[in-house]
Amino acid sequence: MASVNRPDLLADVPIRSLLATDWYELDISDRNYRCGFNQRETFELFSRSAPFGGAYMICAGTVRALTYLLFTLTEEEAEWLVQCGLSEEFVGYLLSAGSDLFKGVDIWIVDEGRVVFPYEPLMRVQGPTIPVQMLETYALNAVNFSTLVATKAARMRYAAGERAVLLEFGMRRAHDLSHLVAARCAMIGGLDASSNTYASRIYGTQPRGSVMHSQIQRYDDELEAFRTLYQCALDKDRVTLLLDTYDAIQGAYNAVKVAEEMRRDGHELYAVRLDSGDLASLSRRVRSILTEAGFPNVKIILSGDLNEERIEQLVQAGADFDILGLGTELVTCAGQPALPGVYKMTATSDPNTGQAVGRIKLSNDPAKSTLPGAHQVYRFYSSDGMMQRDVIGLDPDDADLAESGGEPLLRQVVKDGEILLPPLSPSERLMEAKKRAAEDLRRLPKQYLALKGAPKFPVVLSKRTMELRESLARELEASPHCAGQQIPDWDES
Amino acid sequence: MASVNRPDLLADVPIRSLLATDWYELDISDRNYRCGFNQRETFELFSRSAPFGGAYMICAGTVRALTYLLFTLTEEEAEWLVQCGLSEEFVGYLLSAGSDLFKGVDIWIVDEGRVVFPYEPLMRVQGPTIPVQMLETYALNAVNFSTLVATKAARMRYAAGERAVLLEFGMRRAHDLSHLVAARCAMIGGLDASSNTYASRIYGTQPRGSVMHSQIQRYDDELEAFRTLYQCALDKDRVTLLLDTYDAIQGAYNAVKVAEEMRRDGHELYAVRLDSGDLASLSRRVRSILTEAGFPNVKIILSGDLNEERIEQLVQAGADFDILGLGTELVTCAGQPALPGVYKMTATSDPNTGQAVGRIKLSNDPAKSTLPGAHQVYRFYSSDGMMQRDVIGLDPDDADLAESGGEPLLRQVVKDGEILLPPLSPSERLMEAKKRAAEDLRRLPKQYLALKGAPKFPVVLSKRTMELRESLARELEASPHCAGQQIPDWDES
Repeated sequence: MASVNRPDLLADVPIRSLLATDWYELDISDRNYRCGFNQRETFELFSRSAPFGGAYMICAGTVRALTYLLFTLTEEEAEWLVQCGLSEEFVGYLLSAGSDLFKGVDIWIVDEGRVVFPYEPLMRVQGPTIPVQMLETYALNAVNFSTLVATKAARMRYAAGERAVLLEFGMRRAHDLSHLVAARCAMIGGLDASSNTYASRIYGTQPRGSVMHSQIQRYDDELEAFRTLYQCALDKDRVTLLLDTYDAIQGAYNAVKVAEEMRRDGHELYAVRLDSGDLASLSRRVRSILTEAGFPNVKIILSGDLNEERIEQLVQAGADFDILGLGTELVTCAGQPALPGVYKMTATSDPNTGQAVGRIKLSNDPAKSTLPGAHQVYRFYSSDGMMQRDVIGLDPDDADLAESGGEPLLRQVVKDGEILLPPLSPSERLMEAKKRAAEDLRRLPKQYLALKGAPKFPVVLSKRTMELRESLARELEASPHCAGQQIPDWDES
Repeated sequence: MASVNRPDLLADVPIRSLLATDWYELDISDRNYRCGFNQRETFELFSRSAPFGGAYMICAGTVRALTYLLFTLTEEEAEWLVQCGLSEEFVGYLLSAGSDLFKGVDIWIVDEGRVVFPYEPLMRVQGPTIPVQMLETYALNAVNFSTLVATKAARMRYAAGERAVLLEFGMRRAHDLSHLVAARCAMIGGLDASSNTYASRIYGTQPRGSVMHSQIQRYDDELEAFRTLYQCALDKDRVTLLLDTYDAIQGAYNAVKVAEEMRRDGHELYAVRLDSGDLASLSRRVRSILTEAGFPNVKIILSGDLNEERIEQLVQAGADFDILGLGTELVTCAGQPALPGVYKMTATSDPNTGQAVGRIKLSNDPAKSTLPGAHQVYRFYSSDGMMQRDVIGLDPDDADLAESGGEPLLRQVVKDGEILLPPLSPSERLMEAKKRAAEDLRRLPKQYLALKGAPKFPVVLSKRTMELRESLARELEASPHCAGQQIPDWDES
């Protein structure tokens, strides 16, 4: 039963109320409940475009979306809902149903960390009208931001190269409590650790940090500040010095003095950090000062409003760094702070036969039309193991695509309202997703990794998806509902 | 004592751990603790620019920032901190200190809802080195996003005019759990209510919503869908119909049919919603269809990626609306998803005399220099009650500015670690902030409200602030720390 407590899934979900949704999900469900409207419906969650001008997304948040199935309603919340205008019948039902609210619901998700493309469902929800509708807002909230940050992080990792250590430093600029999931999804997308202590504890990673300018300012003299940072360090081989409080080059010479004192004591300076100025040229000058003084192995940390484009520029300008601190641009997803993910009804059941019936919504904007049916995404690889193309097929009708080598991306994780995912610690779940992302990004042909101007990855429709879509579109175009809307162009597999 | 439980302050703060900060705040505090470094310091939180190209900000999140003083550490968290590399001495201190950790800390804040300008401290923290440093990350996280959203909302309210009802619809695109604070600060800045049910319950507002496209698609026929929405409504005078699932104009004619049926039953159709297409022209056509059919009072709701510029365009294009649904652009603060708020040390105490000593940080970028001293902001009004200029003075030295009519914006809310704020429900606190914002925006001369190209509001330095700053800058410029950095130009009061 979904009601079984799942601390592994809820460890990073501090708000656990069925109220965590838009009012209309409850208000309309109330009407459907009282009118006895109930059918089996299929909803799919997808984005019509990849963010930041790239070709791909890193799927994330699909597990978080499921936690709504574990939420409850308190007596006080129930009373308040009635005061707000819901019916006592429906609220009483929500209260008494408990986890039975989601009975009959089946959910398929793309695993976190997988590379996905526009129009591919990241989540497919099938079940009775009320629970599948109620899930909409929460699922979108969970998937949109997580996928966005994981994708942003993957782009930054791509720009920085595989060698650099990338640290998430964004809590102070993150959108309030989103700092937690931002740290998580930054790591899924390719970062190594976070400065966010709370997130590090939840996700089982070593929190990382350096030193703030105010600590240097606490001393009249920079050299004294550096020396004290060393002398007071518990682990004297992990000392980081911040060079740019006054003048970064002078700071580098002061760092050398302290590094020499440390070496006399049997310790090595771990790192220096530059947080402002022309990072490319400063980092090279600092490296040469350190190297000439006999400290070539001191790590150089760069930070300061870095995004993937600026990282690319740093690399091209020959910046010399070992570690990047990535904050504001990463956690706020500057450039595109929202993934335009949507949750659309793609099939219903025939009230008489119970048979699935594809649903299409046409639009004056062809890109906004939906794909009818319940879908599975089949991924095909070339003989060298690289991703070749994805086929959006019908589930189960196109199962033969799996037999011919297509890897199904969606897998069932909820059956009849019960979450099937095995218990995994938040840390294990994060590390699995991170591994998947790294593997998938290695199998994505290089041209699709470009930050800008990447070609569209081939995502095509199966013959059956195409036929269903065209027959429904023809039907709808002939109906009084249609006012000149078109279906978008798709390639067939 | 700060340890007194403050459910009123914590109702919307589900993460309540001292770990909710950057690692370096703890790591460096550990060193200061073990080295016995302790002095009285002043930190100020401010933004060097107003967001979205505007002239002003709506202060928010300053109360939320204080909740860190109520946080604790569990035994398990303490153990984990030691595993991560903190000293047992320091962690033991954190664990045993409890609320005494913040003993000696005094905090002044600008009340939520006040109009503020670049460089003005929204928060001033004075106290011993360790607690004032530890507060940094959390305070910035709390203030940066809240102030950003409240400001975005105020801009949208300005564009929409005072008459329109503005609803926050953004939960599905908000950055994960930031949906809660986004709803709150949207209302502070000028919105009327939110679709976010959980937030509405916490903040005591009536949740609002309309109807989703999938509900219309559940019926073969739009008219049948509309009719059922009416028939199943609990409050039959609050029915909203969504017009654009198929064709908005056809939808309007169907809405008229249902409105006629409703009137025969003694009810009036409440509203219709348009969510796509050319909203300006569609809304006018829908209004004329409704009016000609005898339903001039039906409210028209417009939505669909609206931001302040698009609202302004709608108004200029003569769109006819009563209610706007504002989502993605508002809650993600698209355009500028981060307020560049910083938390800087502006004074320390002389180790021998205990006297406050202003601290200045010069920078190669003059805008990045800090203002030394502990400041108060004095606001002066013209005889007509409109804001004239703000003076950043020294506290308490410039107290005479208050006697000469300057309104002090910062007020002390924490004394010796104790939060002085009277208990107020989250709803009352929100409504007070909302009222302040509305009042302040009325007193801000019109030219500063412009969405783009607004002049800079006059914020000047008091004579004493100016003198302190110049004497410290001269001192620093003469020191080996300085490498050609400059102090920025400021006007004197």
